[in-house]
Amino acid sequence: MADKLYVAVIGPGEATEDGRAHAEAVGRGLAHQGAIVVTGGLQGVMAAASKGATEAGGTAVGILPGSDRDTGNVWLTIAIPTGLGELRNGLVIRAADVVIAIGGGHGTLSEIALALKAKTPVIGLNTWQIDGVEQASSPDQAVEHALLRARTE
Amino acid sequence: MADKLYVAVIGPGEATEDGRAHAEAVGRGLAHQGAIVVTGGLQGVMAAASKGATEAGGTAVGILPGSDRDTGNVWLTIAIPTGLGELRNGLVIRAADVVIAIGGGHGTLSEIALALKAKTPVIGLNTWQIDGVEQASSPDQAVEHALLRARTE
Amino acid sequence: MADKLYVAVIGPGEATEDGRAHAEAVGRGLAHQGAIVVTGGLQGVMAAASKGATEAGGTAVGILPGSDRDTGNVWLTIAIPTGLGELRNGLVIRAADVVIAIGGGHGTLSEIALALKAKTPVIGLNTWQIDGVEQASSPDQAVEHALLRARTE
Amino acid sequence: MADKLYVAVIGPGEATEDGRAHAEAVGRGLAHQGAIVVTGGLQGVMAAASKGATEAGGTAVGILPGSDRDTGNVWLTIAIPTGLGELRNGLVIRAADVVIAIGGGHGTLSEIALALKAKTPVIGLNTWQIDGVEQASSPDQAVEHALLRARTE
Repeated sequence: MADKLYVAVIGPGEATEDGRAHAEAVGRGLAHQGAIVVTGGLQGVMAAASKGATEAGGTAVGILPGSDRDTGNVWLTIAIPTGLGELRNGLVIRAADVVIAIGGGHGTLSEIALALKAKTPVIGLNTWQIDGVEQASSPDQAVEHALLRARTE
Repeated sequence: MADKLYVAVIGPGEATEDGRAHAEAVGRGLAHQGAIVVTGGLQGVMAAASKGATEAGGTAVGILPGSDRDTGNVWLTIAIPTGLGELRNGLVIRAADVVIAIGGGHGTLSEIALALKAKTPVIGLNTWQIDGVEQASSPDQAVEHALLRARTE
Repeated sequence: MADKLYVAVIGPGEATEDGRAHAEAVGRGLAHQGAIVVTGGLQGVMAAASKGATEAGGTAVGILPGSDRDTGNVWLTIAIPTGLGELRNGLVIRAADVVIAIGGGHGTLSEIALALKAKTPVIGLNTWQIDGVEQASSPDQAVEHALLRARTE
Repeated sequence: MADKLYVAVIGPGEATEDGRAHAEAVGRGLAHQGAIVVTGGLQGVMAAASKGATEAGGTAVGILPGSDRDTGNVWLTIAIPTGLGELRNGLVIRAADVVIAIGGGHGTLSEIALALKAKTPVIGLNTWQIDGVEQASSPDQAVEHALLRARTE
């Protein structure tokens, strides 16, 4: 499995309808390309990306903040409770070859910052405008650029 | 996937031939029962359990101590680098509904102790004789008892 | 000691001369007010704040990313190696009643975001302009506002 | 402060009277020798060692499992909430140059095992009989041997 790419899809647990639609399309696109989707495992953007991935036959891994597997959304292929609270954000980033950030929120911002610090590429869709984040204009473009960046870094 | 059981198979990275054979049989048995195998992702007992699980069509998740996915063994379905060093032992235990310990080593002992502290059942195969660890006499018995304990706790 | 305040002073390990001067003044001011200074324990802003605190008779705690205590700066009263890498940023924030951010950098941004997520007050001095960060115009003002916020939250 | 030794005193939160008396004597002895005492910050052995250290003019650092500083015992000089639960056991060990284990318990066993894995010396007082733990017959002997081992490793 060493050749599979792991792509973190990060975003708030309470997402807008647009955010969820984008996340689901991103998850679906990543699954079609054979990438594994990694999220924080909860609702909102995390659930929508996982739904998109698994409904398209792909794999969704959720790295949960709490100690109880049942807090994960129902679309996860693998749910890993950590009991680390927001510190699990760092694990989501460490597990990823590239990151797609959708929407705002402070948890998402912490993950973007940790990714940039670790020199992991970050693609953004309607998210924080931080230097170093490559902004995409659509879910398809986000998927395309993420895979390109992951393969060339 | 909420009804799948997650079983941690723990043991040293440098295992005896017997230890590896036991671990492979345990991984195979767990896969046949539909359980997901979680390990620390490295060699020895961890690799053998992952091999047994994936060759039988199951799923093996590796929670790695380092930051580099390539340090995981080749039988992992999902490899999660954490960069936490031996602190990842605690995550292996938190991710598990039940634990099967095979062979010795201090890392294994720390995992057994954390599991007992968390009241997660531990089944042992030729491992530390610690009060609270239920000793099994064969891989098949270890699998059977682990699934029984996980389902009744 | 339950009545002592813990103030995290966060900022980059490679700081400008202004950044270091600000951090040293902040550390000194916090020590004069009896607060304990917590940092990531390395150089730049972290070292300057620790220097200011301990030279004024206060206490500086460093929560280090590596496993080796000797990587801490020489002004630390207490140096705690964690081996967690950038994940220790989350521990710096958890250890703090209030945060003063000085200067930029992605590690600093991750700490600001984690603090805001945890509803820990953040005072800024020439740092990221993020909604929720209260900007101060001088080290003295940063210290004053930090202690005020910590005591009223 | 680089020349100060950090000694972890580990043991259960519900200790026997003997365990508490031993821990207090160990904390006092370490303080007299200028060593910094590190514990998990709660009650029982942890509180007694902290009491012994600070009443003798020394320093007691508590690395707490929860997110709330107020869960620390009243004798801590420095209380660091981590929110990591039992995973903070690994941080207590990483922060230490040498470990003194007093009494039993599974949390204590996990710390002994992590220390042995990390090749940090462990001195035991009425604790688990694990290969590699050097057993002492009194608090004074435990302190003496701990400092000797820390200085020669």
